[in-house]
Amino acid sequence: MTNHRIALIPGDGIGAEVLPPAQQVLDVLGRRHGFTLSYTSYDDWSCERYLREGAMMPADGIDQLRDKDAILLGAVGYPGVPDHVSLWGLLIPIRRSFRQYVNLRPIRVFEGIDSPVRGARAGDVDFVVVRENVEGEYSEVGGRLNRGFPDEMAVQEAVFTRAGVTRVLDYAFELAAQRGGRLTSATKSNGIVHTMPFWDQLVADRAAEFPQVAWDQEHIDALAAKFVLEPARFDVVVASNLFGDILSDLAAAVAGSIGIAPAANLNPEREFPSMFEPVHGSAPDIAGQGIANPLGAIWSAAMMLGHLGHPAAAKDITDAIASVLAKTDVRTRDLGGAATTAEFTDKLLGLL
Amino acid sequence: MTNHRIALIPGDGIGAEVLPPAQQVLDVLGRRHGFTLSYTSYDDWSCERYLREGAMMPADGIDQLRDKDAILLGAVGYPGVPDHVSLWGLLIPIRRSFRQYVNLRPIRVFEGIDSPVRGARAGDVDFVVVRENVEGEYSEVGGRLNRGFPDEMAVQEAVFTRAGVTRVLDYAFELAAQRGGRLTSATKSNGIVHTMPFWDQLVADRAAEFPQVAWDQEHIDALAAKFVLEPARFDVVVASNLFGDILSDLAAAVAGSIGIAPAANLNPEREFPSMFEPVHGSAPDIAGQGIANPLGAIWSAAMMLGHLGHPAAAKDITDAIASVLAKTDVRTRDLGGAATTAEFTDKLLGLL
Ligand SMILES: CC(C)[C@H](C(=O)O)[C@@H](O)C(=O)O
Ligand SMILES: CC(C)[C@H](C(=O)O)[C@@H](O)C(=O)O
Repeated sequence: MTNHRIALIPGDGIGAEVLPPAQQVLDVLGRRHGFTLSYTSYDDWSCERYLREGAMMPADGIDQLRDKDAILLGAVGYPGVPDHVSLWGLLIPIRRSFRQYVNLRPIRVFEGIDSPVRGARAGDVDFVVVRENVEGEYSEVGGRLNRGFPDEMAVQEAVFTRAGVTRVLDYAFELAAQRGGRLTSATKSNGIVHTMPFWDQLVADRAAEFPQVAWDQEHIDALAAKFVLEPARFDVVVASNLFGDILSDLAAAVAGSIGIAPAANLNPEREFPSMFEPVHGSAPDIAGQGIANPLGAIWSAAMMLGHLGHPAAAKDITDAIASVLAKTDVRTRDLGGAATTAEFTDKLLGLL
Repeated sequence: MTNHRIALIPGDGIGAEVLPPAQQVLDVLGRRHGFTLSYTSYDDWSCERYLREGAMMPADGIDQLRDKDAILLGAVGYPGVPDHVSLWGLLIPIRRSFRQYVNLRPIRVFEGIDSPVRGARAGDVDFVVVRENVEGEYSEVGGRLNRGFPDEMAVQEAVFTRAGVTRVLDYAFELAAQRGGRLTSATKSNGIVHTMPFWDQLVADRAAEFPQVAWDQEHIDALAAKFVLEPARFDVVVASNLFGDILSDLAAAVAGSIGIAPAANLNPEREFPSMFEPVHGSAPDIAGQGIANPLGAIWSAAMMLGHLGHPAAAKDITDAIASVLAKTDVRTRDLGGAATTAEFTDKLLGLL
């Protein structure tokens, strides 16, 4: 029986409350589909650790994760610890060390969820944002000049490499070929002079290799507007690191699912572990009360199973999520209900 | 009687169809409020000129505009001419040569306009996006290495100067002090390492000078989501060049007003002419049919009058726009009607 070694990093706040429900679901699926999961928990990799010891994880943290098959992360962030500390101390080093160059964010309007956008109806809106996850606008190249003086400035280099862009485009085109056969590239080649025309050129190059995929490109400003105006029209949207970050959060909001959306940070070659995390944050305001919505972590676990080679098990989970939302009115507070994390999880387990 | 020298640049497509309605409105207001406008038209500064002569405007184009009090632009863009050519050949040089460092985009849900967002109700949503308009992520600093080889890359420097950021923040804080007293700064200091923490620091510095303004900051991904989830909560939103570009188009879509939204490119010191332009493009698909919606150009003309020192005249125009939308069902095709540009303009003139 295949065993998968899973690293669990609960992180901060509600992170520790949403991972156990995900594990419960995973274990049910393992029994049903014939695989096992063995977990290693990294309970203190967190902002509290940072405040105590000056680092989010130990110096050999990345090495401790290296032999795992996948990483399931809860949430990171804590009042008093600046975001750039918590993120660049844990999340971003994991993405980069393990070449998780694809950030995959499924966007789906579930029946039983009210979208804030009139045109976003259940069944119609079902797409994915493929975000480049390790280069582009998020670079450490740059710095400040003349600190504190009137002529002070800060500069930052966006870096787009042919290899880095091509591999994420290949992933996106392949995904589009398996899904609805349509791809939209986010660009800003009318404003961003050097890097986005290069991106466009690589998109056109790759498109030539995927004649079965119908593709177009939209400037990021117009594309953000279209997410609101015509959300049902997308299939696969591919974007740079920054554009993908913006578009995926915007799309989750359009779908009414910011509290339940998952993200996968993938190393498609499986040379290194991939990481799965709910999109929601650590929610310090409700942490410790047992009322966090576990669906983001559970949906992330489904993506993890898909990546580990169990698409049928993954589908069992997303079907159960769809059922619990469509067929019951059990809801956690963020969705307008009063159920606890445990009650909501039990309801979902019953439908699994 | 004060006279204002106005440069008219119709540009491409429907640009030439929406400026005459704006002029009609302006002339009515001049008579009523006691000022005159003299126009100089630059009819051939366009993509057609580019195709014929290799440049969007003459070599001394910027100098021809220098002694004007304001510039009213129709739209730029033409099938077959890449956007970066038309924009960097006309729009962007004007913004930069005349230090139009503020791009101001009012966002308002008018009664009679259907917003695609459930929570965006007329009366509730009324804010402005103040976009930094000449530096930041839109820089020409950068280029390509190893062109055509596997190790090819493109780099682009984002440049944020203390002076450049401070002046736009001052504008935004002053505007917030005059409006609802609230300001939101768009940032991404958790992901963009060097420039956005600098931006945040300058925001905090300026905020200390405006104790009457309540301010907060949001990361651009979360902010884009909030534009959809809570559009009524904003008053003044200040953002870098790229973030402001994205947010202002997104906000116009949320307000249901992408076809009627205006933009002002301001040199607040009035050392150089400022430029006013509808947000919509040249719409080649409907150009020449006389059915373009003139409200974007008319609302832009209102912003121009405000800048030229005629706030009461500007308000007459925005009131007439509100009336024509709320009290009549005359609409151009983009708003679901069948009226021509001339019919819609006449209706509005009747309500002025
Ligand atoms: C066309 C483009 C360069 C321009 C910009 O991004 O500045 C446009 O989107 C705008 O908002 O005026
Ligand atoms: C927190 C931040 C650095 C991160 C990102 O922008 O990558 C987050 O927004 C995300 O989408 O995972």
